[in-house]
Formats: sequence, C-alpha cells, structure tokens
Amino acid sequence: MTRSGVISLTTDFGTRDPYVAAMKGVVLSMHPRAVIVDVTHEISPGGIREAAEVLAQATPWFPAGTVHVAVVDPGVGTERRAIAATAGGQLFVGPDNGVLQPALRALGEPRVIHLNDARFFLETVSRTFHGRDVFAPVAAHLAMGRDLEDMGDPVTDVVSLDPAHPREEQGALIGEVARVDRFGNLVTSIRREDLDAFLRGRRPRIRAGRLTLDGLQGCYGDVNQGDALALIGSGGALEISVNGGRASDRAVDAGEDPLDLKVRVTALA
Amino acid sequence: MTRSGVISLTTDFGTRDPYVAAMKGVVLSMHPRAVIVDVTHEISPGGIREAAEVLAQATPWFPAGTVHVAVVDPGVGTERRAIAATAGGQLFVGPDNGVLQPALRALGEPRVIHLNDARFFLETVSRTFHGRDVFAPVAAHLAMGRDLEDMGDPVTDVVSLDPAHPREEQGALIGEVARVDRFGNLVTSIRREDLDAFLRGRRPRIRAGRLTLDGLQGCYGDVNQGDALALIGSGGALEISVNGGRASDRAVDAGEDPLDLKVRVTALA
Amino acid sequence: MTRSGVISLTTDFGTRDPYVAAMKGVVLSMHPRAVIVDVTHEISPGGIREAAEVLAQATPWFPAGTVHVAVVDPGVGTERRAIAATAGGQLFVGPDNGVLQPALRALGEPRVIHLNDARFFLETVSRTFHGRDVFAPVAAHLAMGRDLEDMGDPVTDVVSLDPAHPREEQGALIGEVARVDRFGNLVTSIRREDLDAFLRGRRPRIRAGRLTLDGLQGCYGDVNQGDALALIGSGGALEISVNGGRASDRAVDAGEDPLDLKVRVTALA
Repeated sequence: MTRSGVISLTTDFGTRDPYVAAMKGVVLSMHPRAVIVDVTHEISPGGIREAAEVLAQATPWFPAGTVHVAVVDPGVGTERRAIAATAGGQLFVGPDNGVLQPALRALGEPRVIHLNDARFFLETVSRTFHGRDVFAPVAAHLAMGRDLEDMGDPVTDVVSLDPAHPREEQGALIGEVARVDRFGNLVTSIRREDLDAFLRGRRPRIRAGRLTLDGLQGCYGDVNQGDALALIGSGGALEISVNGGRASDRAVDAGEDPLDLKVRVTALA
Repeated sequence: MTRSGVISLTTDFGTRDPYVAAMKGVVLSMHPRAVIVDVTHEISPGGIREAAEVLAQATPWFPAGTVHVAVVDPGVGTERRAIAATAGGQLFVGPDNGVLQPALRALGEPRVIHLNDARFFLETVSRTFHGRDVFAPVAAHLAMGRDLEDMGDPVTDVVSLDPAHPREEQGALIGEVARVDRFGNLVTSIRREDLDAFLRGRRPRIRAGRLTLDGLQGCYGDVNQGDALALIGSGGALEISVNGGRASDRAVDAGEDPLDLKVRVTALA
Repeated sequence: MTRSGVISLTTDFGTRDPYVAAMKGVVLSMHPRAVIVDVTHEISPGGIREAAEVLAQATPWFPAGTVHVAVVDPGVGTERRAIAATAGGQLFVGPDNGVLQPALRALGEPRVIHLNDARFFLETVSRTFHGRDVFAPVAAHLAMGRDLEDMGDPVTDVVSLDPAHPREEQGALIGEVARVDRFGNLVTSIRREDLDAFLRGRRPRIRAGRLTLDGLQGCYGDVNQGDALALIGSGGALEISVNGGRASDRAVDAGEDPLDLKVRVTALA
C-alpha cells in the first residue's frame, strides 16, 4: 500500500498541555518528513464515541495511505489492547476501545493487528501516555512504509461500540443526535440512505425536541434568518439547523442536553 | 506569479469538528507538498467583519505567492459568488461577502475572478460546505501554479463591507474598536497615518469609554503595572491597553460591549 | 550542531488573533522548508512560569537541532534582553525572563547569547511584538544553520525563576502543584528522583488538600472509576489524579485554587 506521509491526530488532550507536542516531537524524530495534521484535540476527556464520530467524518477526505492516530484512551496502561488497522487504503492506530471502529466500518473490510511487538515503541513505555510512547512511534513506522502485518498479530474481535443505527417504530424512523457542532447544528445518526429507504419519495416531517420541520432544504439560506430547517449535511447525515442561529438551543428546554434528544421522522401524506 | 506552496486558512469552523481536517485532507490529496498554516478557526460563527480584520493583519507577513483561504460563509449554497483574487503578490480564495476585501484593499490593486468553473471543484459539491468542496480544491490548484485568470471570469463589483474609516467631527478624530485581542487590547480603526494627519505634531488625548489617555507610549512596560496606555500597535493601528491587565474590562461599565465603544482623539494644546 | 528544520512555538497569544500566523509567515518567508510545530498558544497571558513548565516537558521529545521559540513576554519593548541558547542539542529563542530556563536546566550546560545584533531581526522592529520582529527571524536563521555564537554576545547572568524544588520539613517532603492539566491531573513539583531519595523504599502517603493517598499506582485504571490515586506521570513527576474524574475539583474546597495547594509526602511505617 502506498503512503502519503500524512499523519492525522485525534485526541482528548486539548492544546494547553505539552502532550500533543510530545507526540509530534516523537513522530518527527523518527520521520522528519512526516506531515502532521490535527483533526482535533478538543474531544471531551474520555469521549470515545465523540472521537469516533469526528474521525469517521474526517478520514474519507485524506490522501490514500494516510495514518490516522486516535488517542482517547481512558484505559491506558490496563489490559486494553493497542491496535493498528487498514481499511479503504487508509491506516489507523489507537487503543482497542471502539474509537477507530466507525471509521473502519465506513471504509469497509478492515484488517486489524494487535500492537504487541515492543520493537516499534519507544524504548521506555510509560503506563499513562501511550500516545507518545506507543501510538506515535507506530504511526511513524507505518507512515515510513512498514507493513501492518509486520507489526503485530491479527485481531478479529475488536471492541465495538454499540452502533447508533436508526430504527423503524410504529411507522416512524427513530434516530439520535450524534454530534452538536460549533454552529449548534444537530448532526443526527440518520443517514441519507436511511431516509431515502424509509421515505420512498414521500416528504418527511422531522421532529427533535421542540422543533418540527416539514421537508428538506438544500442549504441554510433556503429559509429566513432565524428559522429552523432540516437538510442532508455535508457528511451525508440528516442535520437540523437554524439559519444564523443555534438549533442546539432552540430544540431543547432549559437544562436539557441536545445530545439526549430523539429524532423522529414520519412521512407526510 | 511565483507560488510559495503555503496555504493559509481563516474560518469560523472551530477546532472541535471535522470540518477543518476535511479541508486539509482535500488540499493534501491534490497537492501533497502544500504547507498549510492556520490563521485562526476561532472567528465567531458568521463573523465576516472579524475574519476580514484578522486576515488583513496576517497576510502581509506571508511569503509572496501564498494562497489565503477565508471561509466565513453564512450564505453558502445561495446565489452569493465564490471568488478568487490576487493583490500584492498574494492569492485569495473565499466567498464574495466582504471577508477578503480589507486584505485586498490593504495590498492594493486586486484582480478578482468569479469561481464559476466546476472543473476546479470536487466532483460532487455539497450545498453546505464549500470550504471543502470549492475553496480547498481551488486553493490547491492556485498553490500548484494554476493561473487565476484560467479559473473563472473577471469580477469588478465585489461585495464591499462598509469600511470603518475614522472621521473628523467638531475638532475630534472619531474611530471604532475594530477588534479586542486575547490580552484585552482594544485595537482601533484609527491607523498611524490617520493619527499623524490629524495631530500634525500635537500630542493626543484619547478617550474610549471610561478611559482617558494623554500621549502615546512605545510599549506596555512604559507605564506602571495595572496602568492604562495608548500606543501604535504592531499592526499599525492605535491601540488602548492596560499593562498586565485588560483594557477591554477597564474601558466599559458592566454589561457594556467594548466593541460598541467610540474612540475619540483630540489634540492637547 | 545539526538542525532538524523543526521550529516549535510556545506563546500566550491564543489562536483567535493574527499574531501566531504573523510569526509563521515571517518564518516561512525566510525559511520555506521549516516545519513549524505549535506546542501551545494557550498559556495564560503573561504566564511565564506556566510556559516554562510546558516547554520543559515538551522539548525532550523533539529531534536534535530543533529551535524552540517561547514568547510570553510582558516586558516586550523594555530593557529586558532577548536571548538565544543551546542545551542538550536543542536550540532556544525567547525573552530573558525565565521562560526558557527550566528547559535549559533540564537539558544541562546551556550556552546563552544576548540577541543584540539587529541584522538578524526584521528591518523594522516594533516595540510591542518581538515574537514577529525578533524571535521569529532569529529562529529562522538558527533553523537554517546559522551558528548561535554569530548572532550575539555571550550571557552568563540569565534571569532565573525561583525554582520550585521540593524541601524536607519535619520528616515530610513538601512540594507544590506545578500544573493542572486538561484532565484535572495535579502535576506536582516533586520528581521521581526526589521521591525515591526521600522514601528509600518505604511506601508513601501523599496529601494534597482534601485528598490523602497511600501508595503509588501504575496507571489511572489501577483504581476504580471515580477513585483518586497518585502515580509518577509520563513526564516523571508525582501526579495526583482521579480515574475518570478531575483531581483538581476533588482536592479543593469551593473557591480554592488547586495551584495554591501544598503537596505533602510522608513515609508509611
């Protein structure tokens, strides 16, 4: 498999502490020509599902042969495995806690190995920072062209997050709010394909909390400033938005978390 | 025109979501040797004027032939045009909503084109994320050396933000707070040239909200810790500061927004 | 000395303003192949000690010949010196206010020069932004291979921060909280060597505010979810943590600042 030289990083480390820089220093010490791209370091501490969602949205846009490193790793130093994987021409490195799984599933037919060969780690491996001591050096090796299969034993039982597939219930399609973005958009777990299969050409009514929306718009500016709308977002998922405002505020009562909302789609007559 | 290979990004996307990474992935997929520099992604959602101000301050310091991409684009997917431009040896890409205009004006004599040739976009263009589908690929083409004129038709009527030029009124020079920076400095719309032309060698008295300052200092440490001062900031604009404190707090009454303050300069006898 | 081409940046500029981008533009204008790595820009405004701590933690992981630039510089434009230094195969640039000193001390036997030769600065040097006008161009020169000794006169009396060495007092080892990280971990000023020398094989009892912890754990998952623990963190310092929670909240009473806590270690019988 070709390598792009690009290494992407997705962590819950934030940008105030020296942790991300330490990882980058390790990568550049081993692979001086690596091109490191931050996906995000603003994942909520321990937010495995949140990181998995962001990673799966970002990875399809990278060059083939990019190495994606995800370190949201509350179980660091315990028996949880470190893994590396390939799927759809991309490479992945991280803990076996589900953080890589949605990206792998989206790209299809992953091969996964257990990172159990310490030759590819730093000489001293701490028990609290495998991002620096295990995942960064493994990513550098992979980005330099090392074969995945050389680096550990195959794994077939990777840890899986309970997937948030929408379900049909009494004539309605029921999904969840998968992510609230910086603009307050509610990105749902209902994908374009799910919606098409359910609607079969009918017009949808979409309900989430206090918002009820009939039909899909094409872009935010298709409704008046301040009005709510539903559309298929740029990542292919049903999205609930307010033009020039925040759907995450408008959809809930005070004190409610928009991530707890159910999204309910019915077909209009 | 030469190309530096550098592409700068200014957006209101924040750094939690996958949007910036998707743009970078698209750029690197097309132009693996591009050097991508974040100007900022912390523009307030839809803050066109704020982004324009930051971009105009940052661009003069980049190598000739840098491509600056600004995506603050509340009108994405509507009839607003996508444009690219050159001025002063730099290149620019963004929506035609005024976000590029102060940078272009500062560099002088811009040439602008309408990005109306889909050959330079991603194959599928969403209606909600032109940063990824239009502006990133156009930036990659420009950074690789493609001529601006090849990429669309000339435009002469670019959208203009009402410029915040200071004005003279009853013997005073009146300006605005253009930007409050992380240190609480009030960066005003009054530039060194405006001040020199108005003062003709006289000493200024500067008023902004609760602060009145006589004379200009050279640096923050020219006054005692905790004292307010005025100086010409590193970007060439009149700036009101507090040494070791926040002018943005000191200048206003509780609940007032420092961005609403008028800045009033008079000449001392 | 070899050069890695890497330039790291540690500042209190934040990421909303054009300041960091201006520095990067200056570097890339002079040294187009420089690889710029952000350590952090989220240092509290004027937080010299905080920046010094983060820098000292990050630098050991970078390739030999990296140039580390630290700009936390409340005295910019005053008589405070600008300095550059080498230690342990790394290079450093910043104001002579103590921000570089812990990193230099950790690497050992630094050589320091006073940056008093304006040939290495931008042609016009502002009095408020030496990050852009002095430190960025000096870093570019150093990263391109210029000898440190060519760039200024030797300095032997660098400004020193009062070091936070732990002390023994009535049979206890007393340290401080040096840093609270994004996870709420209390990173103390007590290093593994200090602890080993004090304990001589005995088991420690560690007290910080409301927390009392017996013994050291190996990783966060060694205690139950929600339980507090002490361990030697990945940077080699004694750290107080809560598995899946925030020690910085648990250790203090409401309104108390965890940075004010004393850390007290005694030996269990």
